[in-house]
Formats: sequence, structure tokens, C-alpha cells
Amino acid sequence: MRIGILNATGYSGGELVRYLAVHPEFEVVGATARSQAGRRLHEVFPWMRASGRAAYADLELTPELNGSADLVISCLPHKASAAKLAPFLDDGMRCIDVSSDFRLRNPADYLRWHGVEHAAPEWIDSGVYGLTEWHRDQIRETDLVANPGCHAITAALALAPAASAGLLAGHVMVDSKTGVSGAGRSASAAYGFSEINEDSSAYRVADHYQSPEISQELSDIGGSPIEVTFAPHLVPMTRGILITAYGALRADVAPSHVEQAYRDAYEDEPFVHLAGVPPHTKWTSGGNHAFVHWTVDEATQTLVAMAAIDNLGKGAAGSAVQNANVMAGIDEQVGLAIPPSHP
Amino acid sequence: MRIGILNATGYSGGELVRYLAVHPEFEVVGATARSQAGRRLHEVFPWMRASGRAAYADLELTPELNGSADLVISCLPHKASAAKLAPFLDDGMRCIDVSSDFRLRNPADYLRWHGVEHAAPEWIDSGVYGLTEWHRDQIRETDLVANPGCHAITAALALAPAASAGLLAGHVMVDSKTGVSGAGRSASAAYGFSEINEDSSAYRVADHYQSPEISQELSDIGGSPIEVTFAPHLVPMTRGILITAYGALRADVAPSHVEQAYRDAYEDEPFVHLAGVPPHTKWTSGGNHAFVHWTVDEATQTLVAMAAIDNLGKGAAGSAVQNANVMAGIDEQVGLAIPPSHP
Amino acid sequence: MRIGILNATGYSGGELVRYLAVHPEFEVVGATARSQAGRRLHEVFPWMRASGRAAYADLELTPELNGSADLVISCLPHKASAAKLAPFLDDGMRCIDVSSDFRLRNPADYLRWHGVEHAAPEWIDSGVYGLTEWHRDQIRETDLVANPGCHAITAALALAPAASAGLLAGHVMVDSKTGVSGAGRSASAAYGFSEINEDSSAYRVADHYQSPEISQELSDIGGSPIEVTFAPHLVPMTRGILITAYGALRADVAPSHVEQAYRDAYEDEPFVHLAGVPPHTKWTSGGNHAFVHWTVDEATQTLVAMAAIDNLGKGAAGSAVQNANVMAGIDEQVGLAIPPSHP
Amino acid sequence: MRIGILNATGYSGGELVRYLAVHPEFEVVGATARSQAGRRLHEVFPWMRASGRAAYADLELTPELNGSADLVISCLPHKASAAKLAPFLDDGMRCIDVSSDFRLRNPADYLRWHGVEHAAPEWIDSGVYGLTEWHRDQIRETDLVANPGCHAITAALALAPAASAGLLAGHVMVDSKTGVSGAGRSASAAYGFSEINEDSSAYRVADHYQSPEISQELSDIGGSPIEVTFAPHLVPMTRGILITAYGALRADVAPSHVEQAYRDAYEDEPFVHLAGVPPHTKWTSGGNHAFVHWTVDEATQTLVAMAAIDNLGKGAAGSAVQNANVMAGIDEQVGLAIPPSHP
Repeated sequence: MRIGILNATGYSGGELVRYLAVHPEFEVVGATARSQAGRRLHEVFPWMRASGRAAYADLELTPELNGSADLVISCLPHKASAAKLAPFLDDGMRCIDVSSDFRLRNPADYLRWHGVEHAAPEWIDSGVYGLTEWHRDQIRETDLVANPGCHAITAALALAPAASAGLLAGHVMVDSKTGVSGAGRSASAAYGFSEINEDSSAYRVADHYQSPEISQELSDIGGSPIEVTFAPHLVPMTRGILITAYGALRADVAPSHVEQAYRDAYEDEPFVHLAGVPPHTKWTSGGNHAFVHWTVDEATQTLVAMAAIDNLGKGAAGSAVQNANVMAGIDEQVGLAIPPSHP
Repeated sequence: MRIGILNATGYSGGELVRYLAVHPEFEVVGATARSQAGRRLHEVFPWMRASGRAAYADLELTPELNGSADLVISCLPHKASAAKLAPFLDDGMRCIDVSSDFRLRNPADYLRWHGVEHAAPEWIDSGVYGLTEWHRDQIRETDLVANPGCHAITAALALAPAASAGLLAGHVMVDSKTGVSGAGRSASAAYGFSEINEDSSAYRVADHYQSPEISQELSDIGGSPIEVTFAPHLVPMTRGILITAYGALRADVAPSHVEQAYRDAYEDEPFVHLAGVPPHTKWTSGGNHAFVHWTVDEATQTLVAMAAIDNLGKGAAGSAVQNANVMAGIDEQVGLAIPPSHP
Repeated sequence: MRIGILNATGYSGGELVRYLAVHPEFEVVGATARSQAGRRLHEVFPWMRASGRAAYADLELTPELNGSADLVISCLPHKASAAKLAPFLDDGMRCIDVSSDFRLRNPADYLRWHGVEHAAPEWIDSGVYGLTEWHRDQIRETDLVANPGCHAITAALALAPAASAGLLAGHVMVDSKTGVSGAGRSASAAYGFSEINEDSSAYRVADHYQSPEISQELSDIGGSPIEVTFAPHLVPMTRGILITAYGALRADVAPSHVEQAYRDAYEDEPFVHLAGVPPHTKWTSGGNHAFVHWTVDEATQTLVAMAAIDNLGKGAAGSAVQNANVMAGIDEQVGLAIPPSHP
Repeated sequence: MRIGILNATGYSGGELVRYLAVHPEFEVVGATARSQAGRRLHEVFPWMRASGRAAYADLELTPELNGSADLVISCLPHKASAAKLAPFLDDGMRCIDVSSDFRLRNPADYLRWHGVEHAAPEWIDSGVYGLTEWHRDQIRETDLVANPGCHAITAALALAPAASAGLLAGHVMVDSKTGVSGAGRSASAAYGFSEINEDSSAYRVADHYQSPEISQELSDIGGSPIEVTFAPHLVPMTRGILITAYGALRADVAPSHVEQAYRDAYEDEPFVHLAGVPPHTKWTSGGNHAFVHWTVDEATQTLVAMAAIDNLGKGAAGSAVQNANVMAGIDEQVGLAIPPSHP
């Protein structure tokens, strides 16, 4: 399958290039960049000379996609992505949007959370939420995948089994710890090493645009509304998201019910693993895997569910490749065999 | 005041030595160490040659406290501290225990959480919980201060105003992110740089010994039982604890009530500061200060309260000095004017 | 080819397991461990569940190698490795020693630098130094490869072209900055996160056991003795070695001669890349690549040569796989196509 | 003494504010800022609410210095500083320039290394190089101190005793590892946490503007020209500079001569300490101290001299305060008793 990448030079785009460098069935036929257009990929990413794919040496970054692709993957930021993808969709091409532009189904929510009107509202209904483990069948058929947000996919993986089995009694508190690469590659004093190292802080508490995405997805999976209080935190690491989610369990739920729900959901999944102990983000570094763990605080009948991913892997580029595999009708694991790097 | 320190060579003990190096009214007259006994302080801590207190050059670490002190501060680990402090208490000396040995008032809780019988149960009732901002008057009079745990003091500072004002409707979820120095100075592969850098993980979820301490203290301040689900997390930094706590507010509580409660509690405090934005642990590095911030998720009537401290400062040695000042009847701020180090 | 691994549970051994997980022509048929014997690989390395090689799920770690392997790779520490490899060599098996036991050709040097007699001196002469780029032909034929030390391979890659072309006038100063994973996985307070983060220091200045290895290898390549002053430094990162080497150039050497020497040496190498700017260790993270850069300080006629690698990749496990490929007579790049992970 | 600060909101300026917060004899009477002018100090540096100096609460940052100061300290970047300081010097005020504008005595060197003409060449000759330990007497009398560069002061402290005693045979190689705060507080993708963590690299090898400063100062101290090959490296920490310098010793120099030279130079210094082992940058974090260590590689008659400082302390703001104390005729240690923070 021929792949075109929009904005290959950010962190998500760069990771996508890295995954595709070893994908035996996909070929990158075009890649756009903004400030770096006109340069070859190797000049922007010197380490890609070590990718083992000779073709990348000559891939020139362009302002717009040249040539024809079977699938366009957008790594543009939200608010920029929808407008760029719409023409490809109009032309009948298949697309994956790594940004949040096609995730919320209600255009009014888009306006509320992003502060601008949606640039291609006519395509919102076509979008399938790209949480592969829960929506494979729709992803296979659709022309437009809305790849999940990095916090949202982690929260969903942590809580979906409980939501799906109807174990939750009320709203959930989602506490996320994210590495800094989630903020992207642009220059900002706030994300400078000197500011971030030896620091942790919360941001956009109960006010983050992925909050409604988590709520929408858990409600979909659970079949009834699930409200979310979401607090993301920046911790001093580059990659990784760790979610700890707290939710009251229904009074009649025993730990064995929880265990059954999580096993049913994940025991056959190639990229989601139940861990016997709280998971470490480092277990996922550089790969497309998630580790999930849960415990029940029996004194208060509270579920504490945890999930860890690499925000650039399962949280962005890895998911995109997994979804592209599903769209292409090939094994989900093709090209995703890179083992995580530890330590 | 003459100070004796038990176990001056761990991280808490070392930080206590650092604070006392610039304290104009306290003098360290003895300091014990285990493996390092017989060496001088400068040999163990080369950087203390830069302390500006010449006397430290000749302070020899001993297995037991020599000479007489007016106040003994124990930086021994829990389960070791009580047995060592009891003889000093029996002799009528005043003591501050930085360990958790005298924090829980119910000896049965001690057994449950630490797995052993308390070594000096006869002194438990004498202990005053050393959250200075809420218990100054008792601290001034007591012979035994139980210095708060690093997670617990941060959680208490974040939630005490809401508890005290009766704003909370039910149990609270306390999510803590701690730097690694809280695990102490001993050798452990699990705390090696290679394991911790680029990693975040939870540990002892709903099973940490400071969980009952948080609950006991909030219940005391609130005047009725407040249950806690506590999940500590290790994040890749040396110093700092950031607590984000989630609690349902009573239906009739408005944000203005919350604001009033936090202002009343902290506006005159020298070491606790209300921040206009979520606080950064780095703001506190190397000092005895706490920054507190709160927000209300109005969609779910949930209070999200945050506090940041330096776990070795306000979370251990700084608090101990602050409490020692109160016990000595001098200004709480004496010797604690070291400004935090940033960046 | 069937591979047996001695000590698969240290950092080098773990990285070797990671590389071999995606190697299409090698199969791990046995792996030993000391404290972890009896456990399966997945239990020790949870992240290997994400390796994409199902067989690892059942690989049980054993105290000694069971079954028959075509190649034994030892990731044991030096002083332990030679004695364990000798019986395999005596039995006619091929071996790669990742430790330093077979690197120095003079047994007296071994005694001087390691403080003990060599455990298998009869095999020293058979060892071929595993700097693949310079010794491919001998590696192909030998039964025993002495895989280079992590500092030494970086220094050799930085300086070998100049040594080989006879450009150096005298002895060289080699300044190395290494990540902490080079110290291995064992428990040590000195390598704790709290000690290492925000710290840099030198160690074993002019007294490190890889110093004679660098000198021996450069002398071999240059054809005459080259003395080395070697100073390794620990910097706060997990992976990576950066060497900056300083050497006086012969008076008649112009920068164009240096350029020619480095181009001749590396322009066709798949794993060594000449960079247009000083290389970053991060360009190599998780892969088997080296980036080399040089400059001439014309005011003092001094060559400053730099090289960056991943100490666990090109500095240990990656090199071992590259050498195993050469020994097996297959393309050097097989199984080493994992692109480095950035950022 | 009343102090005015130019550019109080960068990292050097912020550290200067921190030191002066506890200085009993100096008072900050004015502080300028560029983008932050009009805000109060507490608004820009929330952690300064924890400084223990109430007056700072009301200190408003202004575009130009208001009111009268006895001493102006400029933390402006080089190329901006000289032009701003000249009017104060013309008015007869005393000044300390933390930038490099008044360090090189030859205006041609300024042009060569900074690429622009010097903005106040008439004041160059008045500048005294602010390496306090070697130039106290001139500093006491001068109206203009050129505070040393962070690399240069570390290199000078490491090598000055050898240069002063005439032990060096030729040119020296100076390898510096610096934390990122040296690059200042401005926004730059290159200094983002994601780029810097887990990375080390060299920059401006044999082409850094502090190279002639090191050479000038060592030549001054040694009494004859000493050439320098200087290679700075960025390592992933916020604070700290570690210099390892390599120089051939004269043939007749024995280690005992070296020992004598270093002892003579530093044994009575309050801020420079000879360490028995290679120094750690962390020993100096947050303070104005330097630790120095040396060894002789007897096989090659090479001196390897090391020094560690906090680049914002002894490398900038700490030195400035030490020099201000000398200029004011008070004890050098006043206000500099803050013990380094460890771990």
C-alpha cells in the first residue's frame, strides 16, 4: 500500500516514518513538511540514515503531497488537519487522522473545546474512532479513521473492560502522567529541559480537550453515559503515558467480576497485555504495546485501573499503523514487531 | 538549642544537616550513623565542606548519640525509630520522629500496616502529629512530634481546608507523584537511574502505609471520618511530591465556598502558598514551602485539589526544623530562609 | 543458527534477547541466568511479551546452557566469562565473548588491569577483536570473537581512520561520556537515580581497564604504538557513549587528508555514518549504528574526533549480532534493521 | 549596598535574585526585564514567594533601571550588555558584567568571536577579570568587573595552579560538559526536554567564544602564552559544569610538584575545595563552590585536571555576588552561605 504522510517532521510524523521504515507491505510515496520542505528526510532526521531503508535517503519533503497514495495519514496538529484531509476524502481516498479533528461526533463539542468551527463537518459522521481493539470491524470498512488521542486511548484501554461489562457505578476520575513529547516538537521555553527536568505539574485540570473524547468513548462502549473528571500531568520523561483511573464499582461487583471483564477483553489481544503488577511506561518505549493492570480498593468499593503506553507508539504512530493494517486487510501485527527498548 | 540527630547519613538526615548548617539558633551536638560511624561528616558528604559552618568539619558520626542534646530528631526508618527514641523520651528529652512510628494512634493499625508490633506503644498517645499549620499549639507543648509522612503532608495540605470547612461529600481519591529520593539512599536495582529515567509507575495502590495516616488526619481536621483511596506513583525526578486529590463536593457547595476555605486556611501562612495555577514541584526544590491550588469540575461537582512540596523539605527535614522552631518557642521561619533553587 | 546466551538477564543480555527477537535466521535455544534461573523470560522482562516472538513466552532461564547451540554468546561480566566459555571452546563450539576477557593479547596485561590471573589463557591467542569494520575477514573464520568494550569501540571508531592513515603525531587523549547502563543492572546506591540525575563526574581517570584495549587496537590498526590517556565520565543518561578524542596531527597533515581518511574508512559501511555536525548519542538509541565526526583545530594542528553509539547496541549486543552474522556468513545487516528511537 | 540588576528574568538573573534574597548587606533597588516588564517579581518567579524576603513581593520589573544603585550587575546577553552598561560607567557607577562583553582585552578578538564591533571599546581596558581567587586585589579597586564565563572559570580553576607554577609543557585540551541552563531561558526546540534527555553531544568544537578567554586567562596567570583546544559538550542536566583538562607536563615535573601547586593555590580558599576523588557537579548544585581534583597519567607525563561548579552559581550569579562582596570591602562569604542541595 502506498502511504502519503502529512507533516512528517513532528514527533508523531517522525515516529510514523520510523515504523514504516520496517513495514514490509507499506511504502511511503510522499511526505509533507512545513518549514523543512525541500530537504530530504535524512537531512532532517540524521538518525534515519540508520533505518535500513535505503529509499528514505532520497525522499524529499514537499509542501503538498505529490503523486498518488492509497492512504493518507495526517500528523498535522488539530485545527489544521481536517481542512487538509477533506480534499483527499472528497477524492475518494482513505485517510487516518492522527489529530483530534474527527474524534468528537458533535460539532458543537468541537467548537467548545477547540474554539473554532470544524473545517469539514460533512466528514465527521464518516469517522470511525480508531481504538482498534474495540472497533476493528468498522475500521476495516471505513474511509476515515479518527486515531485516538494519547491520553484518551490510555484511559479507554484502562477502563473499557469495566465500562463494557457495566461494572461502574458513577463517574470516573482519570489521572494521567505524560511525557513531554506529547507537546510536540515546537520551540517553547515551558518545555525546555531546564524547566521540565526535576519537575511535575498538572495542566488543564478538568479542562482538557481529550476529556470529552474519553467520556464519549467510554459511554459508547458502556452503552450509557459515563462522566469523566480528567487531570493530565506533565512528568519529566520524553515518552510514555501512565493513566490511573478511579471509579466507584456497583455495590454487587466482586473482584472476580472485574478479573473476568479484563480477561475477556484482552487475553487474545496482541498489543494489550494484562500485567500482574502496576505497569511501567518504560515497558512500552518505542513499541505499539499497552500494559493494563487493575486493583479493587475493597474498603471503598473503588476500582483503580491503570494503563501504560508509549504516547508516540500506541498513542499515535503505532496505532495509526495498526489501523492502517486493519484497513489494508492484513495482519494487525505486520511491521509492528519492533520490540520495546529497555532500559 | 542543642540538637542530636539519629541517622544523619540518609537523605532526610542529610537534608536536616543542610538546614541546620544555616540555622542561627540550633547547634548539632551529635549525629549517629550506621555503616558510616567513625567518619566525619565531611567525609560522607563532601559537599558539606561548602556549608559555611566550619564546625561540621570536625563532627564525627557515632553509633549512638554522645553528649547531651535538648532535642533529638530521628531520621531512622520506621520500625527502627520508636525503639531508639523511647529511652530519650523516658529520660525526659524532647523528640521529633521523622519516621512513621508515632503517627497512627491505634497500635492495631501499626501492626496491620507495618507487620510488626509497635516497639514503644506507651508513647503513642503522647505523639502530636506534626502538620504545623494545623497543630501549632499542641506542638509547642509536646515532648514528641510525629513528623508527617511525605505523601500524607502533601495530601493533608491539599485537602485540609475542604475537610475543615465540611465541604466534602464522601471519600477522596489521592493520586501522588513522588520523586525517587523518598525511597531513601540504600542500594536497590529498582531505583537505579537506568530503571527510573524515562519511566513512571504506580506502586502499593490502595495498600500504602501512609494511606491510614491521610485518612486519620483529614478525619481529625474534618471532625468526621473521611475515607481515602491512595495511589502513589514514582516519577523520574529526585525531589518533589505532587498530589492531585479528587473528592465529591456536597451538593450545596459553590466554588466561592471553596475559595473562602482555602484562603482562610493559608493566607497568613509563611510556608504554604495558594498558587493561581497548578503548582510545580520545582518551585519548592530545596526549601520548606508548599504550593496549593484547587479547581472545581462543575460538571460533576468534584473538587480537584493539588499541592506540591519538596519531599525532603516540607516532606521531611524542613518540617522537622519548622516543628523544632515551634517547640523551641522561636519564630517558625528561623533557619528556613533558604530560597528554593530554580531551575 | 542456534544461539545460546550466557547471562541473559543483565542489560547486555537483555538487549541481545531484544535484537534476536526479530532476527529471522537465529534462534535462541537456551539462556542462562544466575539469580533468575527457573523463571521464564517473560517473567523477568515483562516487556518481552511485546517482542512479537511467541517462543520467548516459554523460554525458561537455566543455571547452565541446556541443549546444543551453534554459537554461544557470553554476556557474563569479565573475570567470570572466560572460565565459562572455555569448555564450549574446548568442545569445538564457536563463541562470542561480550566481556573483556579475551581482548588483551598479553596475559600480563590481564593480571595488571583485572587483578587476577586469566582463567583460560590457552584461548587468548584465538580471540579476534570484534571491531567488525576493521577485522571482518578474521571474524568470519574464527571460533572466538572478543567483542569490543563499549568505550573502546567508540574510541576506535573515532580514531581508527586517522591511525590507519598514519596521521597522528603522538599520543591521544580520549574523553568518554557514558550513560549509566554501562555499569550494569546490579544494585548500587552510587547508580541510584537520586545520585545520578543532575550529576556528571569522571571515574578511573587514566586507570580504566579499557585504556590498554584502546591503545592495543589503535596500535594494531596504525601499525605502530599509539599511547592513550583515557578519562571516562558518567553523565545522567541511560544509554549512549560519546567519545571526544584529541590528538596532535603530524605537521604535514592537512584537513583534506583527514577527510580522505575518514571517507575511505566509512563511506561504504552500513553501521558507521559520517555526520556533518557533532553527533548526538540519541541518534543511535536502540540501534547498532555509530555516527562519527571530526574537526581540525588548525591553530594547534590538533585532530578532534568524535563518535557516538548506543553502548548496549554497537557497544555490546548490536556488535555481537553483527559479528554473529559475519561468523554465520550472512549479510551483516540481518536482524539489525531496528531503526533508532527518537526522540 | 544598593544593587540594580539588568535583566533579572533570565536564568543568571533569577539566580542572582535568589542569592541576594538572603544577602544581609545588599538590597535590590531595581531590576529590569524585557518581555516581563511591568510585572512584579513574584508573578514571574512564583517560587520567590518562598524567598523569605518580603520586599520582593512588591518589586516591579521595569524596562530601565529606576532609582539609584551603588552597583549595577548586568545579566544581559553578550552583545547587548556593553551598550547598556556604558552609561552607568560614564556616570561613575560601579558595574559587574556577567556577560562576556568585557572579558577579552583585544577588541579585534571581540569582533572575531562575536561577529560585531564592541559597543563600548573605551571601557575594555578598565575591566578586571572576575576570577576572584586570582585577582582579588584588582577587583577591590576597579569600577568594572568582567565576570568570567561559565566554562572559562571552571577551566581556569582546574588549570590555574599548574599554569601559575609553570608546570605545563605545551597546549592544553579542555573538555567541558555543561548542563542546559547555560543556554539560557529562551524558547528553542533544540533545548527541549525531549531533545536533551538521554542525549549528549559536542558543539562549537574548537570554535567557542570562551576559548580565547580561557587561553587569555591561563596565559596571564602563567606568564607566557598557553594555547587551548576547547570542546564544550551538552549533557542532560540543568545545572553544572564539569571540566576535564589534559596537558603535557614538563619532563622534570613530578606528581609532588603538582600536589604542592594545587595546595598552595586553594587550601585557604573558602569557595574552592580540593577533592580526594573526581568531583561531582551535584556537590555544587545551588551554591557558589568549586571542587577541583587532578591526577597525573605517569605513562604519558600528562596532567588531567578536573573542576566542577554550578554554572549558575560559581559560573555566574554566585561569582557576581562574591565579586560584589570584594568590591564592597566585606567578607567574600557574606550572603553565600546557602549550602548546596544534595541529592
